[in-house]
Amino acid sequence: MFSEILTQVKKSAPLVHCITNFVAANDCANILLACGASPIMAVDAAEAEEITALSAGLCINLGTPDFSRVSAMLISGKKANELGLPAVLDPVGAGASKMRTDTAKRLIDEVKFAVIRGNISEIAALASGSPSTRGVDADFSHGDVDFAVQLAKSFAQKTGAVVAITGETDIAADARRAFCIYNGSPMMRYVTGAGCQLSAMLTAYAAANPDAVSESAAAAVCAMGLCGEKAYSRLTELDGSASYRNYITDAVYNLTPEELERGAKYEIR
Amino acid sequence: MFSEILTQVKKSAPLVHCITNFVAANDCANILLACGASPIMAVDAAEAEEITALSAGLCINLGTPDFSRVSAMLISGKKANELGLPAVLDPVGAGASKMRTDTAKRLIDEVKFAVIRGNISEIAALASGSPSTRGVDADFSHGDVDFAVQLAKSFAQKTGAVVAITGETDIAADARRAFCIYNGSPMMRYVTGAGCQLSAMLTAYAAANPDAVSESAAAAVCAMGLCGEKAYSRLTELDGSASYRNYITDAVYNLTPEELERGAKYEIR
Amino acid sequence: MFSEILTQVKKSAPLVHCITNFVAANDCANILLACGASPIMAVDAAEAEEITALSAGLCINLGTPDFSRVSAMLISGKKANELGLPAVLDPVGAGASKMRTDTAKRLIDEVKFAVIRGNISEIAALASGSPSTRGVDADFSHGDVDFAVQLAKSFAQKTGAVVAITGETDIAADARRAFCIYNGSPMMRYVTGAGCQLSAMLTAYAAANPDAVSESAAAAVCAMGLCGEKAYSRLTELDGSASYRNYITDAVYNLTPEELERGAKYEIR
Repeated sequence: MFSEILTQVKKSAPLVHCITNFVAANDCANILLACGASPIMAVDAAEAEEITALSAGLCINLGTPDFSRVSAMLISGKKANELGLPAVLDPVGAGASKMRTDTAKRLIDEVKFAVIRGNISEIAALASGSPSTRGVDADFSHGDVDFAVQLAKSFAQKTGAVVAITGETDIAADARRAFCIYNGSPMMRYVTGAGCQLSAMLTAYAAANPDAVSESAAAAVCAMGLCGEKAYSRLTELDGSASYRNYITDAVYNLTPEELERGAKYEIR
Repeated sequence: MFSEILTQVKKSAPLVHCITNFVAANDCANILLACGASPIMAVDAAEAEEITALSAGLCINLGTPDFSRVSAMLISGKKANELGLPAVLDPVGAGASKMRTDTAKRLIDEVKFAVIRGNISEIAALASGSPSTRGVDADFSHGDVDFAVQLAKSFAQKTGAVVAITGETDIAADARRAFCIYNGSPMMRYVTGAGCQLSAMLTAYAAANPDAVSESAAAAVCAMGLCGEKAYSRLTELDGSASYRNYITDAVYNLTPEELERGAKYEIR
Repeated sequence: MFSEILTQVKKSAPLVHCITNFVAANDCANILLACGASPIMAVDAAEAEEITALSAGLCINLGTPDFSRVSAMLISGKKANELGLPAVLDPVGAGASKMRTDTAKRLIDEVKFAVIRGNISEIAALASGSPSTRGVDADFSHGDVDFAVQLAKSFAQKTGAVVAITGETDIAADARRAFCIYNGSPMMRYVTGAGCQLSAMLTAYAAANPDAVSESAAAAVCAMGLCGEKAYSRLTELDGSASYRNYITDAVYNLTPEELERGAKYEIR
């Protein structure tokens, strides 16, 4: 199944409009190109609608937000909804500030998202109002996989989105069904924006497979984790987190549909 | 001829003021350092004039524009004209939105550019009003080399700038004479901002050789393409687009004037 | 002594709030992760106070400033002071424009910084009003080590901050005592944002060792220089400035407290 999803990404080469933070923007654009998609980035409200209309999918990322960018997010999200394009939300740092939590909530209220992807702390903050965070790149495993599965399913039920929670085990769930994904490497937490990159790639996967969003989200999460494993296996003694970061994107570039199918480790709950 | 142009870059180490998008800003700064120049980046109108006055050249890039940045672009462009510094325009995404097309046109109306560099879709949008685009990193070969040469020459005639159109074959033309450049690698399209990097490097080449702007532009385009070839030849089986991106900048760092002279593949039409 | 400082960074894994330029933001986040800390980045005044309050240290960097970001800097700086968190200032380009010089001076007036780090031109501009600069990545050795030591000590006296001046020889001084540091590689000047990265890492070191700020600053400067040496020793013939940049962060990732202790080259004056 996942092999066809990636084949479709490479065949349709979706143009993905990213409204993303300036920390990870370059990495997001490069991973989109690596997986077979194309990036376009626009942050000014004046062009948000037109750029979205050219695209096959929209990725909204809340890292380093400022108010002017938020209006571009709302305009683009509504346009994507109007055109039936999948919109993905990455609520970076939700729970860390009132501005981010409120912005994420407002976006979820006003835009129908196909996928919402965050770490457990961000998703919990949006689902329940839990207010704590500890660094946008940190790993927040407060609770076990069962807790995360329940949280993802219930937030999916509430929002209508596929909810992806990434951490030691990754979850991609709609209201009925959760993929629990065991790909990945603990070293990925040393690469800033790896989650942002996943959200961008996930948008490409969903844009190329609009009728199979749950499976697309699961496939993208597996692909990122698998590439994290492949990158890890390539490290030499002198390599560290910077070479590792490059090796992940290299692996995404080289990932074939068959490799993804064979390497994906998940169960459905 | 090209060897002297690069020798001059390394000798004069021009300071280049870049007003560029946040996606490629880091890559632009690093390629400037790699080729022997120095970057300075300023986006606030409040300091635009002063920073430009310190510099030997100005590179204006329209990726991820916002309105506040546009006024810095206008102020800096006019200051560069007043001081006789070469100004380069990279109209990223012209044709993709009214805002970008209008901004590019306004800049061209109010600032005299030494070089305008884009892909064929961007240049066509500015020359003729053709409104379509497909991703800022995509390759837009609608037409053959003859068409591109004519477009570049006529837009050069109209604007007084050297017009560089990059694609499968690259063109650098003034109103009378076009360099058709056959360096490069198809893999360069998998690196976001490779065009932005070229525009930055081209500014350094022009700033160091203000009396030979056409040749400088052609030399910079050859240099970038040649470095793309050298980087490609270095790839291992596990390498992909991220390692490739690094190898391009590595090659720029290591490129000697003699190598450029020997490796440049072009004809003049 | 330096080994305990780095051990403490790895043990406490401080969350560092960076308000930094978009050119080096990704590199700053990655070096924080590499050294054992965590980054969080926020630029909007609306969330500046909350994000700072979550953090263990604050790094303010003046590269690519705009006015909206300056108010976030002031709010965050005051909050850091109120909470007793170390605040670090990197006055990128001070002296290059009135806006940057004035902003740096205003920040120094209104916020008590634990460390101020710049090149000699930037520090001289703030200490004495000297107005010239030549590229934010250039090396400004106007004067010898004695001059730099005196400048650092007197500016430390005036501001109450530890003053770090980086160049061919690096200085980290409080009013009484200067560490003169001989680690580093001339190739570091070919990596944009290496200074910004040092400022970010220095914030992590100070945040983890708030009672030994002078030693922390010296340790961070030694660590960066030592990693520059290790990265240099790893270069192959085809490698250039991009691979070098990655190797520096790799080296930071792999640096052990014992290596730092053994490799640090400094004298105290």
